[in-house]
Parts: sequence; C-alpha cells; structure tokens
Amino acid sequence: MKQKLLQLFKDLEQGTISIEKAIDHLKYLPYEDFGHIKFDFHRELRTGIGEIIYGKDKTIEMLIKIINSLKQKEKNICITKLPKTKAKKLLKIFNEGYYNELAKVFLLYKNKPKSNKQKKIPIITAGSSDIYVAEEAKEILNFLGSKCIFIYDVGVAGLHRILSYKKIIEKSKVLIVVAGMDGVLPSIIGGIFGKPIIAVPTSVGYGANFKGLSALLTMLNSCAPGVCVVNIDNGFGAAYIAHMLNK
Amino acid sequence: MKQKLLQLFKDLEQGTISIEKAIDHLKYLPYEDFGHIKFDFHRELRTGIGEIIYGKDKTIEMLIKIINSLKQKEKNICITKLPKTKAKKLLKIFNEGYYNELAKVFLLYKNKPKSNKQKKIPIITAGSSDIYVAEEAKEILNFLGSKCIFIYDVGVAGLHRILSYKKIIEKSKVLIVVAGMDGVLPSIIGGIFGKPIIAVPTSVGYGANFKGLSALLTMLNSCAPGVCVVNIDNGFGAAYIAHMLNK
Amino acid sequence: MKQKLLQLFKDLEQGTISIEKAIDHLKYLPYEDFGHIKFDFHRELRTGIGEIIYGKDKTIEMLIKIINSLKQKEKNICITKLPKTKAKKLLKIFNEGYYNELAKVFLLYKNKPKSNKQKKIPIITAGSSDIYVAEEAKEILNFLGSKCIFIYDVGVAGLHRILSYKKIIEKSKVLIVVAGMDGVLPSIIGGIFGKPIIAVPTSVGYGANFKGLSALLTMLNSCAPGVCVVNIDNGFGAAYIAHMLNK
Amino acid sequence: MKQKLLQLFKDLEQGTISIEKAIDHLKYLPYEDFGHIKFDFHRELRTGIGEIIYGKDKTIEMLIKIINSLKQKEKNICITKLPKTKAKKLLKIFNEGYYNELAKVFLLYKNKPKSNKQKKIPIITAGSSDIYVAEEAKEILNFLGSKCIFIYDVGVAGLHRILSYKKIIEKSKVLIVVAGMDGVLPSIIGGIFGKPIIAVPTSVGYGANFKGLSALLTMLNSCAPGVCVVNIDNGFGAAYIAHMLNK
Amino acid sequence: MKQKLLQLFKDLEQGTISIEKAIDHLKYLPYEDFGHIKFDFHRELRTGIGEIIYGKDKTIEMLIKIINSLKQKEKNICITKLPKTKAKKLLKIFNEGYYNELAKVFLLYKNKPKSNKQKKIPIITAGSSDIYVAEEAKEILNFLGSKCIFIYDVGVAGLHRILSYKKIIEKSKVLIVVAGMDGVLPSIIGGIFGKPIIAVPTSVGYGANFKGLSALLTMLNSCAPGVCVVNIDNGFGAAYIAHMLNK
Amino acid sequence: MKQKLLQLFKDLEQGTISIEKAIDHLKYLPYEDFGHIKFDFHRELRTGIGEIIYGKDKTIEMLIKIINSLKQKEKNICITKLPKTKAKKLLKIFNEGYYNELAKVFLLYKNKPKSNKQKKIPIITAGSSDIYVAEEAKEILNFLGSKCIFIYDVGVAGLHRILSYKKIIEKSKVLIVVAGMDGVLPSIIGGIFGKPIIAVPTSVGYGANFKGLSALLTMLNSCAPGVCVVNIDNGFGAAYIAHMLNK
Amino acid sequence: MKQKLLQLFKDLEQGTISIEKAIDHLKYLPYEDFGHIKFDFHRELRTGIGEIIYGKDKTIEMLIKIINSLKQKEKNICITKLPKTKAKKLLKIFNEGYYNELAKVFLLYKNKPKSNKQKKIPIITAGSSDIYVAEEAKEILNFLGSKCIFIYDVGVAGLHRILSYKKIIEKSKVLIVVAGMDGVLPSIIGGIFGKPIIAVPTSVGYGANFKGLSALLTMLNSCAPGVCVVNIDNGFGAAYIAHMLNK
Amino acid sequence: MKQKLLQLFKDLEQGTISIEKAIDHLKYLPYEDFGHIKFDFHRELRTGIGEIIYGKDKTIEMLIKIINSLKQKEKNICITKLPKTKAKKLLKIFNEGYYNELAKVFLLYKNKPKSNKQKKIPIITAGSSDIYVAEEAKEILNFLGSKCIFIYDVGVAGLHRILSYKKIIEKSKVLIVVAGMDGVLPSIIGGIFGKPIIAVPTSVGYGANFKGLSALLTMLNSCAPGVCVVNIDNGFGAAYIAHMLNK
Repeated sequence: MKQKLLQLFKDLEQGTISIEKAIDHLKYLPYEDFGHIKFDFHRELRTGIGEIIYGKDKTIEMLIKIINSLKQKEKNICITKLPKTKAKKLLKIFNEGYYNELAKVFLLYKNKPKSNKQKKIPIITAGSSDIYVAEEAKEILNFLGSKCIFIYDVGVAGLHRILSYKKIIEKSKVLIVVAGMDGVLPSIIGGIFGKPIIAVPTSVGYGANFKGLSALLTMLNSCAPGVCVVNIDNGFGAAYIAHMLNK
Repeated sequence: MKQKLLQLFKDLEQGTISIEKAIDHLKYLPYEDFGHIKFDFHRELRTGIGEIIYGKDKTIEMLIKIINSLKQKEKNICITKLPKTKAKKLLKIFNEGYYNELAKVFLLYKNKPKSNKQKKIPIITAGSSDIYVAEEAKEILNFLGSKCIFIYDVGVAGLHRILSYKKIIEKSKVLIVVAGMDGVLPSIIGGIFGKPIIAVPTSVGYGANFKGLSALLTMLNSCAPGVCVVNIDNGFGAAYIAHMLNK
Repeated sequence: MKQKLLQLFKDLEQGTISIEKAIDHLKYLPYEDFGHIKFDFHRELRTGIGEIIYGKDKTIEMLIKIINSLKQKEKNICITKLPKTKAKKLLKIFNEGYYNELAKVFLLYKNKPKSNKQKKIPIITAGSSDIYVAEEAKEILNFLGSKCIFIYDVGVAGLHRILSYKKIIEKSKVLIVVAGMDGVLPSIIGGIFGKPIIAVPTSVGYGANFKGLSALLTMLNSCAPGVCVVNIDNGFGAAYIAHMLNK
Repeated sequence: MKQKLLQLFKDLEQGTISIEKAIDHLKYLPYEDFGHIKFDFHRELRTGIGEIIYGKDKTIEMLIKIINSLKQKEKNICITKLPKTKAKKLLKIFNEGYYNELAKVFLLYKNKPKSNKQKKIPIITAGSSDIYVAEEAKEILNFLGSKCIFIYDVGVAGLHRILSYKKIIEKSKVLIVVAGMDGVLPSIIGGIFGKPIIAVPTSVGYGANFKGLSALLTMLNSCAPGVCVVNIDNGFGAAYIAHMLNK
Repeated sequence: MKQKLLQLFKDLEQGTISIEKAIDHLKYLPYEDFGHIKFDFHRELRTGIGEIIYGKDKTIEMLIKIINSLKQKEKNICITKLPKTKAKKLLKIFNEGYYNELAKVFLLYKNKPKSNKQKKIPIITAGSSDIYVAEEAKEILNFLGSKCIFIYDVGVAGLHRILSYKKIIEKSKVLIVVAGMDGVLPSIIGGIFGKPIIAVPTSVGYGANFKGLSALLTMLNSCAPGVCVVNIDNGFGAAYIAHMLNK
Repeated sequence: MKQKLLQLFKDLEQGTISIEKAIDHLKYLPYEDFGHIKFDFHRELRTGIGEIIYGKDKTIEMLIKIINSLKQKEKNICITKLPKTKAKKLLKIFNEGYYNELAKVFLLYKNKPKSNKQKKIPIITAGSSDIYVAEEAKEILNFLGSKCIFIYDVGVAGLHRILSYKKIIEKSKVLIVVAGMDGVLPSIIGGIFGKPIIAVPTSVGYGANFKGLSALLTMLNSCAPGVCVVNIDNGFGAAYIAHMLNK
Repeated sequence: MKQKLLQLFKDLEQGTISIEKAIDHLKYLPYEDFGHIKFDFHRELRTGIGEIIYGKDKTIEMLIKIINSLKQKEKNICITKLPKTKAKKLLKIFNEGYYNELAKVFLLYKNKPKSNKQKKIPIITAGSSDIYVAEEAKEILNFLGSKCIFIYDVGVAGLHRILSYKKIIEKSKVLIVVAGMDGVLPSIIGGIFGKPIIAVPTSVGYGANFKGLSALLTMLNSCAPGVCVVNIDNGFGAAYIAHMLNK
Repeated sequence: MKQKLLQLFKDLEQGTISIEKAIDHLKYLPYEDFGHIKFDFHRELRTGIGEIIYGKDKTIEMLIKIINSLKQKEKNICITKLPKTKAKKLLKIFNEGYYNELAKVFLLYKNKPKSNKQKKIPIITAGSSDIYVAEEAKEILNFLGSKCIFIYDVGVAGLHRILSYKKIIEKSKVLIVVAGMDGVLPSIIGGIFGKPIIAVPTSVGYGANFKGLSALLTMLNSCAPGVCVVNIDNGFGAAYIAHMLNK
C-alpha cells in the first residue's frame, strides 16, 4: 500500500497526474485494493500465529483447499468442530496434522506457538461428560499461546475438589467454567471466588435440557455477578475471549 | 350407600323386585348417586378441613357464590392467586375473611385448623423477592394444619445464612425450596443436606428468565438427586405435597 | 473468628475443655460462623451403598477408569443412560456386570443391596411404551435398597387395570407415575388415590409432543394437587426421591 | 376452452340446447375445466342467518360501519372477542344490542334464530374458570340455531358430577370439552364416553401453562382417540364446527 | 358379570351369604373383576372390530406378545407408526400380516372388516409428500370399516385438481385435509366447501417449518371456521374421529 | 472532503508536508473526518427526502431533540411505532406535525414529497383488523414518494373482492400482502397472480397465534414461490423494500 | 347471475353481440362477479420453462413417475432438496440428468434455458459453509434463465473482499445474501449498498443457533431497511423471487 | 479428620506449633479436606464499597428495611431495575437518594466512590433507544468506582460515528456493547477493533424480536470471536464484569 501511495504522490509531484485525478484514485484505492476498512479482526492471528477455521459444515474439498493455501503461507492451522470422519480423511492427506477426537479439533502446526508468560487460565468443568468442550478450549488456548490448567468434575457432588486448586484459581485473572444439565456451576464458582467467569453451557444432558438450552438460561440468569456467557458447546469462543482478557 | 344397598337387598329378599331388576339397579347405582368412582381427592379436605379454590380466573360473582355455599357447610375457605382488586371486594362482603396480599391468598376460617404434631416444614427462598411464593406456601401449610419455618434470602450471596438453621433442616422430612432467576438454590441445598426437596421456580427475574422458564429448567435438570419440581410460582402445589409427605 | 479460635486453644491449653470436645466444637464452628459448607450429598451412598454415574455423554475410556476405581473401593456401581454400544464394550471387560437394555442401566454389584423393610413403591405407567423409564426407576430403587411393584399400561384406555392394585397403592407412601404423550395419568391417579406422586414425563410420542415437552407441561400444570415432576425420561431422579421419601 | 364455448353457443343458436341448459353448463364449466373456484364459505350464513365478526383488533369506527351495513341488510349480527370498553360504546349507539361480558360476545338480533330440532350439544368445562370460553361457545351455538347444555366444573376433582349427565351425553352426537391448566379433561371424557370431542384449550392457569400452550399440547397429544382441537380460547371455532357436525 | 351377580343374589336368597357380606362383595366386585368403571373406550373396537396399537416406542418383544394375545382372541390387529425394521421382524413371524411402508402401519386381519354403507370420507393432501400421513389415515379408515377417497396433491399450485372431485366432496359429511409446510390447505378448502374439516399438519418441510409446528399453528389459527386439528402426522387420529363423525 | 484533499495535495506540491506525512494523513483522513466507510444507507433519504425514526422505545426528550435538529436541516420527518401518548405530547410542541393513530406514525413535512411516476403499489390485507399495519406501510410509501392502492379485507372469506382489482394488480411490479391469524393470504395471492410479494405477518389474533408467530411461520413456509417476509407488524420495512423494488 | 347470463344469451340469439365477444364476456364474468379464481401460478413455468419439484419428502417411486410424465411433455425438470441416496437412484434411470451434490438439486434439461439479458444477480455468502444454499440458488436462477455472480465468504472476518465486487453490486437490481450463525451479513450489506436484499438464513452453526433460528430472527429484525427474508436454507425461494424482481 | 485434628491439638498441647500457626492450619483445613466453602462473593463490595440490590420484584416495605439497615452500616446503596412508582416512594423517605429514571437505578451515596485510575470503559449502543441499558451500566460502573465513556447510536446506520472514538476504544481493555433488534453491533465492533466485548442484548424492538430473544441469539452466535453475553437488558451484569476485567 505504502508503495502505491508513494508512487501516486511521486506522480503528483512530477505532474504526471492531476490533483483531480489523484483525488479520484485515493477515493477508491483503499476499497478496491486493500480492504483498508479495518474489518479484519484476524489481524493478530495472521501476523504469525495461525488461522482458526470452523469445520462442521464445510466439505472435505473446501477444507483441503484452505489447508493447502495456509500451508503455503507457512501458517499454523486449527479447525474446530470437525467431525471424526472428515478428520480421518484430512489426516490421510496431511499426516503432519493432529486430531483431538474429544475436542473435535484438527491441528497442523508449522511452529508450535510459544506459550506466553501470562497466568494459567483454569478450565473448570461440572462433570466429566463436559470434557469435550473443555478439551476444545484447551486446544484453542494452546494454539493462541496461552497455558491452562484443568479442574475437572467439580459439580454439585464434587465441589470440595475445587478447593485443592484454590491457590491457582485465586491467582488467575479469568476463569472458564463449563457445565451442562442444570448449569449451576458458574453461579457457585462465582459465589466462592469473585473472579470473572466465562461460562460455557454444554449440551450434556437429556429431556428438558433441550440440548443445552437449560444450562444456557441458567448462566444468563446467574445471580452471581461476574458471569458472562458464550454459545452452547462453544469452547472455542470461551478460550478466545479468555486469552484476550488474560493478556 | 349402605342403606340403599340394604334396602335393595331387602326388597330382593321380600320379592318386591326381581333379580334382573336388582342387577340393573346395581349397575347404575354407584354412578348415578354416589360418584362411587373414587375421583374425589378432596376427600380429606372436605372432612372437616376446608376447600382450596383457585381464584385467578374466576369472576367475583362465582367467588361469592362459592364462599356462601361453603360457609353454609361450615367449612374453612382458602382462595389462591386472588388478585388484590377482587380480594378487596370479597373483604367488603365477608369481613370475617383475611387477605395475605403478598401471597394473594384469601382465607376465611370457621375453625382455625389445629396444627398437627408433625415436624416443621422449612420454606427456603433464594432471594427476598421470592417471598410472595413462600407466603402462599405458608398459608396453605397452615390451612392444612402443618407448621413451617421460614429461611429467607439464602441465595448464592447469602448461603452462609442457611447454616444457622442447620439443625432444623436436618430434623425435617422434606424441604420447600423457592428460587427465581437462575434457580440454582435447590441444586445447592440438595447438595448440602441430602433431604428431599420440593423445588418451586418463581417468575422473579427479567429478560432471558422468560417468566420463570429459566428457573424451571434449571430445577428439572438439577444434578442433585432428590429434587422434584412444581409449576412456576406454585406455592400452593409445593405446600400441598409437602404436607402429604410430612405426615 | 481468630478470637474464637484463640479462646478455644487457650481453653485447650488450660485444660478447661477436652481434646474430644474441642474437635466437636471445631467440626461445627465453620458451619455456624463462617459459611463453610459440606457439599457432599453422596455421603449416604458412599457409606457402603454404591455410586450412580450418568453414562450418556461419557467416553468409554472415562467409564472404564471410573469402574476400575470404584471396584477397588469395593463399591456397587450403577451407570444410567448408557447407550447399548458402550454397554457391550463394558460387558466385555467387566463380565460380572449386567446391562438392562430397556432401562439403559449398567450394574455391577459387589454385594447385592439388602432391600429394606419399607413399603413397596408402585411404579405406574400409562402405556407399555413407557416401560424403559419404569425399568430405569426399578433398577435404581433396587440399587438403593427399595422394593417396587410394577403397574403397567393403565393409561386412559386401561384405567380399570389399576383397581386390582388398589390395596397395594393405598398402603404405599409415594407413587411413581410415568407417562408420555398427553401425560394425563398423574392427574387421574392423583384424583383417585390422594397419594403423593412423583410424575415422570417420557419422550414417548411424536409431533406436537416435542420429545416429552407436552407431557412435562401437563404434569407441571396438573389440577390434581400432590403431583411433583422430574425431568423428561428421568426414571433415575424419580426413583431416588421416592426412595428418600419412602424411608 | 374457446372450442367448448363456441360449440355451446352454436348449439344455443341452433336450438339444440335450451338457454336454461346452457346456463347450467356454464355454471359448471369453469369449475370443472378451469379451476375457477367460489371462495365463499359464508354462503350459508349469509342466506338468512347472520354475520359473525371477529372484534378484538377492530377499531370502534370499523365496527360501527360494519354493524350499520349489516343492519340495512336485515341481518343478525354477532361480534366475538369484543373488549368490554368497545362493547359499551357500541351499546350506546345500538341499544337493541346485547353484550355477554363473560363471553365477550356482542349480539344484535333482527330475528332470533329458531333453534333447530337437532340434539343438544353438551359444553363440558373442567373448572368454573373456563366458563368464559363456554359462554362464547353457547352464544355462537344459539346464534347459529343450535341448542346446548352446560356441564360445568367436572375437572379432575369433580368428575363424578358428569355422571348425572350421562344420558344426555350418550344421546349427543358431538361434545365440546373446555379445559385450561393441564387440559386433561378431553382425554378423560374421551375415555369414558367414546363420543367425538371438540377440545378447546383455555388460557386459564399460570406459570408453565404459558397462556394455554400446556392445555393445547395435552389435547393434541391426547391418548384418547376421537379428540380434535381448536385454538386456545376459541369457543367460537368449537361451536361453529360442532354446529356443522350436529346437523 | 350378570352371571356373577345372579349367583350373588341367589346366594342371598338362599341365605348362604349375609346382606352385609353381599354389600361388601358388591362394593368391590366391579372394581376388582370387571373394570366396571366405564373407562373403556375401546368398547366398540373390541366387539368384533380389532385393536389399534401405537408401535413406535414399543420393543419387538412387546409387539409379539401383544399380537399373539390378540390373535388368540380372534381379533384384527393394527399397529401404527411402526418403523420398517420392526415391521420386517414381525412379518417374518406373522407372515399373514401386511405392512404399508408409506403409512408405517402393520395390519393383521382375521376377518376383513365389511365396509359400512356410510359416505366415503375424502382424504385431501396438499402435496404428494404428505401421502404417508394420508396412507395411515386410509388404513385406519379401512380397519374401522369406513371407505375413503383420495384427492392428492391439490396444494396452492394444484387447487384446480380438487374441482373434479367437487361432487364427491359436496356429498361427504366430513373431510380429512392433510398439509405440511405452510399448512394453508384446510383454510382454502374450508373456504370453498363449507364442510367440517379434520386438519392434519405434517412434518413435511424444512427450516422454519420446525418439524410441523408451522403447519400446526396455521391450522389452529385458521380463519375459515369449521376446521379442527389433530397432532402433527397423526393420520390415525384424524381417521378415527372422521370415522366416528361419518356414522 | 475534496477541499481537504486538494489542500493536502497543494501542501505536498509546495513541499510544506513530506510524502511520508501525507500518506499518514491519508490513511486516517477518511475514517476520522468523513465516515468514508460507506455505512450510510440513509444516503438517499438524506438527500432531500427525510428521516425515518423508530419511535417506540425512545423517550419524549430524545424525540424532541431529534425533531428540532432535523427541522433545522429543513428535512421531512417520519417517526414510526410511536405510542399515542407520546404523539400527543409531540403534537403540542410541533403543531405542524400530523399523527396517524392507526399507523402509529408521526409525520412532519417540510415539503410534501412529489410522488414519483412509478406504478402504484397494492397493499392487500386479509382482514380489516390488519389495517393498522397497512396504514403504516401507506404512510411510509407516501413519505418516500411512492403511491399505493388499498385492497382491504380479502381474506379467506372475501377473496372474490380482490378480483375487482385484478387489472391494477397485474400491472403492478410488487405487492405488499398483510395478514394475521393463519397468515395464508400471501400463499393464496401468490398462487393467483404470480407477482413478487412482500408478506407482512401481523400480531392480529389470539391464543396459538403467539403474537404473530403463527402468521410469520406460515409465510416463511409458503408453498407459493415469490413470497418473502419482513418482521411481524413491520409495515415500515415492507413499504421501504417495496419502494426500492418499484423504482 | 342467471339474469346476466340470460341477457347474454338473448343478445347472442338476437345477434347484438358476436360469438367471439360473448366468449370474452364469459371469460371475465366469473372472475368479476363470482369470485371464480384461477389458482395456477405455475402458468409461467409451464409455458416452456420447466417444473420445479420439492424432492425431500417424496419417495423414489413418486419422483420417477413425475420425471417420466414431464419428460413426455418435453419439459425441463428441477428437483430441490433431493437427498444424495435418492439422487443416485434417479441418475441410474435418467442418465441424462445431473446432480449438484452441494445444492442437493437434480436437473434434467431438455433445452438449456437461454439466460436472459437481465443484470446478473449477486449471491453473497457470509462463510464458505453457507455455499450449499448459494449453490441451490444458483441452480434455480440458471434454470429460470437468470445469471448470477458468486461473492463468497465475506462474513465479519472477510468484509473487505466484497469491495472488489463493488461495481457489480452497485449495478445490480437485487441481492441474495446468505448467512448462518449470527446472520448479520444482510444487515451489514444493507448498510453499505442500499440495495434490496433477499436474505436467506442458513442452518450453519450449532448450539443456540437452533438450526438456523438465530440467523432467521436476526434477519427479520434487521435494522437495515431493504431486507426481506425467506425460510431457513431456502435457496430456491430466494432465487425464485430474485428472478421475478430482476426482470 | 479426627486424626488430623487430634494431632494438631496434641502438637498444640506439646507446644510444637504456636497458637497462631494452629489457627492458620485450621483456617485452611476445612477447605482442603472437607469441602467447607465460603459462599460470600460480596466480600469485596461489603468491605467499604456498598451493596447492589435487585429492586424489581421487592415490595416497598422490604426495600425500606434494607436501606435503613445499610444506612446504619454507613454503606453506599444501589438498587437496580426499580420501577418509577417505587422509586418515588423511596425518594420521599430517603431524600438524600437519587433516581436515574432511564436506568431505573436508585442510588444513595454515603461517600461518593473515588473513581479508580483504570482506563475508561466505553459503553457503545446501537440505537438511542438502547440508552436505558447503557445508563444502568454507567451508574453501576460509577458505583463500583470505574469511569466510562458513552458512544451512542452507532448502529448499522451510524457506524461512521464510532471512528471518532477510535483512539479511546483502542486504548481500552474491554468494551460494553449494547444492542436491541437484530443485535448485530457486537459482531461488527468485534470485527473492527479486536477488543473483548461484553455484549448486552436489549428488549428494544417488536414482533419477531420476542422481547430481546433475537438480539440475544445473534450475540451468542456471533461470528466475531471475543464476544461474550449477559442477560437481556442486564446493564448491571455487563458493568460488573467489565469493572472486574478492567482492573
């Protein structure tokens, strides 16, 4: 871009284009060539970190094209919500890749991200069934360069387990709390520790759980302040914002 | 009924009716005269205790007719979900009545029920805003002859308050737990005390609370076993079943 | 707090209270003064009875780990909502286990629980299609040490069948009533017998049944008092609370 | 088509068919060959009976215009779901009118319809709170020339009352059954009498009743065959179809 | 029953039992032995016609038991909503049976029901995709002894087709109208013919159709009077009530 | 803008700023001073036509401030969904304004827009109760400079009325079709005329209409192609897009 | 009516009108006076273009019959929402056909439609996962004789990409904008370009997306005027109306 | 446990640990070994800052009692969601209080909180109608001691306005973004600035907005990472967590 503008100005200085013409060029330049509009929130990721791609509804052909294109650019690649059958096909082609089956995350690292020196982000789950969302969050955090610590299975029946992690939690800046069924864990953790919580409802449960709606509503209505919520099963989203807040 | 049957048999013995005729009589007797079918669950109440009437959608004329009819039968009267404006009109006519405005319950006692010697039933609420449902439960329990004890405002922010009531709770047979918003209190209480809980979701809250739906779903999906649920704001229903279970 | 503790220790040092007494004080102190809470409602189960694990969303690896760990502790094991394919894998490894396919319950008994001398709990279903939930309830009751009696298929078309069980029902303390589709059975049974009912909506049905929502709402809005409700298809929850109330 | 018509006209010119016959042919031609459809289902009503107007969302000005226009045509007029405030205004202008406040129906009879000699249609309600819908049904039945009989307040707690009406019901061709809250009455009545039932859910209730949704779903999922359903609170619709079926 | 009662009365006449004892017997007789309570709407079907069983959620074992039991009683058998895989298994065992795959209905006729001399019931569908529900309705009508006539695929794009059936429709007493997607057909047919309509919403469609909810709501809110509604995809229910009304 | 850029280039030519500096200026200029990003869809309206403001949730103070600011700019003003009470207050202050009470639209014309020479846009409503949405559409069309023609009350019972408007409709480019309750009108009109339809569901109705949801779903699932949908009661949106398409 | 027809026939007999004229009168008479309506909106398609069939819920037998019948009439054939397994079977029988697997559209062209000289219709998608809906729209546009241009993957993260298509978009008459998940793209595009938008929500996403409901509601509530909406995943509907509007 | 305590006491008696040390051990013992938990997340607020009370569903009597009690403790008081009528009554009694009518927040400051030296938190709203939620957020931030900056009315039509605040935003740590209707603003802002966003859906809108549900779902499904969500209209919750994260 700078080159283009420099050239334009040089042309202007040398009189090869008129002021009027230069204005016209300028008016359209950013739109047409540079996407100058700052709608580019992947800015950070692109500068050396990698791309995160939502894989659930993409065809295998699309995914292969995307991976090849990113590999050429020497980028790390992360594909979320990737069904196992698609993952298997990708692994045959890209055998340097790795698939976390629980997390449904496919990863292809050009250069393992150096984890930053930030505090560890605790990922706390209500039940062991919620682990698949926690695993997704973990992979994303690692991909972005954050470290995390797992505190599993501390739901209503196992709350005492959380206390052995008391010191780690109290030192952390932000918590990821994952729960399905009644989704009460963020309310309880919010009550104990007074830390900001990214709550992730999961679709774990059955019946009037309505595929995670129950946990989602519980968390949105939490009586404990300091709780905000991401989409059902959205371990990616929770990890992403936690990483941002942890810096 | 016995009289009718005895007469029938005597007629049969005396030959004043034929066997065939007697069979016909018998076939229809219970239906036509006695409602022999046991669809009469108010049995208990009618035998000296009183009638509980749902008042929300009844006209004032209906209510006056019902009260007059029950007064003649010397019964205690209890009207639930009665709007204030209707209550005021009833109180002008039946000045021996009493209206609990929070509970929206109208009461007219012929004979105050003697409270039985059963254990007190704890009514525990998450927030002070849930008191109107708790008050309804209290009035119904009293009307049925049960005693209760109030443990208010022990939601996520005030859970420690419940511990001063620890002994009473541990001695009780069944708990009524009332909560709006995220509705997590029954899950928590269920975790602490291992007592059977009648959970009452309330419509306290706003937004994604959807008039109590959030609390209702939380309770139905509770991870703590021993929790069962009644309708949103249904203090009456909770009190009724708690009274049955407390006996 | 510090003052209280200091005093206690001084008393201890000065011999004004015994070590035993001090321990007792300490055991209750935190509860009463500090809001320290024992979140351990599995207390009962752990002391000799067994563990109940929700199996639907757990991986086979998690389940194997849990079973092995509990077996070492000589505990009875019960896994609910376990899909058939997972059950088959578990049975290959733990051939002393047993899988009730209808109930989707996996059981591994170290010592068959002695059924207590309590009254039998009737499990009443509307249609024969509701049997899978009833079977789950039965297995849980047995696991906890309660006895039950089956009264099947007494929906609108077969209500007369219930009357042959009239005596058993009238002697019981609490009923489990299971119904899908319109979910009217608890209202009807509630009308006939005046017993407290744990109502279990099932997902049996189609169309505007919305996977059990219809039956759930019917039960929550039941005109018969004495009805409380657990989650759709939650035979476990109904059995658990019925067992608590039956004692 | 042109060919057909040309032939018809030629036949007419040549006298091979009469004008009367040609008209008959023409009357049916378009229907059979061209998909010309007569969208005029008020045919019946217009020929001497009257007009039924939905009043809830119409302005008072619209209503006055409609009434004046129909009065000129010497028709009976029936306005449903008319709020009380609007009704009062109409009564000031049309003092020969009549307003059933419970039913929210405004009526203006030019000639009282002679009730036909058909069987009476029973209108059965679960609770006295459902009376407003029953009253609407009654007014519509009368307006259309059908007679009805009221059987009120026979919900779960009062089912025995229905048995005194046993003979009338068994003689009838079709039943209107009105119920709010859990909406179980049509299932029960359907089970007892084996008569076709027009079920009307009402918005009577609160909480998880969701303004009649609960009763609506119960009725749609009724296990008793012979039940069909109209909109929540739609006494008009139930009466209209019952009248059609009763003929 | 008569025999039992005659015996009782004879014993009474002969003095072999006391009046007191006879009363006792009578009080319990109907309940215990006869299901005297008139909750037996299958009365009609049982007297020579046959049994209709809901097959979707029953196990193959249950179905075999039911069929064998009914075969012994020389009854016709009809199983609805039966998945193809279960049907195949049944057909292997009961090769005299017949399975309508579109309708998902399994039939086993001992004696083909003689179709009554009633008018034919038109089954009208909006699209050819709705045929599976229409087929279910057809099989049920035949099973019950009613005749029907198919008028298929007359939705918004093919309404003219209905006119060739004009005479049949105008002679009929009641129509079954089946539609998915927008569900507008009953409103339109209701407008044209002024016949009572049993409307059946189907789950045909996608997206905001929400598995038939869209069509269901359209029909419940139909502006054409004379429309009542059964459950989504409930061809059985529509046929059953139409058969009742057609008599 | 041009002035700013010209100045910049002149400075550049005169050497008063460096090329580097100019680039920097250019990079930020459009963002900071001109909102150069083309997020300005009111472009058209602002150039002489006027502003359309959503009034429902604004305070009276906000509205007064907005009106005063626009009046200074000599603009026409249009406020939609304005409650009557707020309108009254505005009319006291801005007595040159006009309020269409049915439409809930407040208008203040500096210069009446000349209606363009485009074809008239038919606004067709199912019932006279839908008029308030039609009136809103009309006011917006007029405000934007389009003409419309009203075709009212042509729902299922009055479809024949539409035919007198046949010629106008067939000449038009796009139709606005407004319907509440079952919302079938767009499907029917779509079937007759093959014109593109902007369908507007209204909240007219009750019960299972769920405040317009029923009509909305019907329209989204319309079997007639050529139907697209705007928000419930959104006469504004329909008029706006129809105006765009009519040009 | 009879009078009118008699007069017409008399005029015909008396030679005051010609047979041709009489036919004309008759052709319009029923429309104007009797509400006879031609429900045949496929008029256009049938006259030489082809038939579009909804394939999702049709059996393979139905589809074969339909195709054979249309082939005989020398028509082009288009089947939408056709599952892959059915498509494979059709291709074996009709090997001149073509199946777009992404679009789930089956095509059988007798004569490729000449694309008209209208402007190209841009199909803009938020993510590459939305391509299957875009492909359906493309096939339909081609089938109807419209050309389109693809602008893919310009969601929140790639908005700058749209600007390279700025000229094409500004020259177009109407846009198809496809988006899943949050469904914000139509609002943003609506803000930038001020063109009428047919918005298509897709079911791409998970959790609180509720199979496209989220995107649907976003689009219906769009703050950008000029947005109208079709059913979730309804690429066909969007293409059809866009084609109509593009002419 | 007993063993551990006995040992501790013995150590104490034997002087091997000091009383101070023993207290420390005891303070942590219950946490680590017994699952004793301190449910007191208001810790912070109570220590000098003030109390935030949810006012919507509390009676005026409750509120007066709470205020008096807190005034005695010299605390600042903040009551949210307080209806105007209740606020007026409180102001008569506590004339040192202040009521922000837009925000529905009642404040009574003993000592104005000193705003901390943290960065200002931008509160960005889509439309001026969303101001009431923004005002609530502002009052809570001030109450907690944070400063904020308002960026109003930057919805789809006014996005350019945000760019004048570009520097402030880029310097901030966390954003509060408030939007009703389609709720797209957080997605757009998330795309431009790459800052963590607390998104607040509002109930501003009508029709298919379903009282904020539309905006809520949009935000939960946001394609822009870095967005988390609080309850509809929950300005308090957003402010609280933003304050925590800003520190």
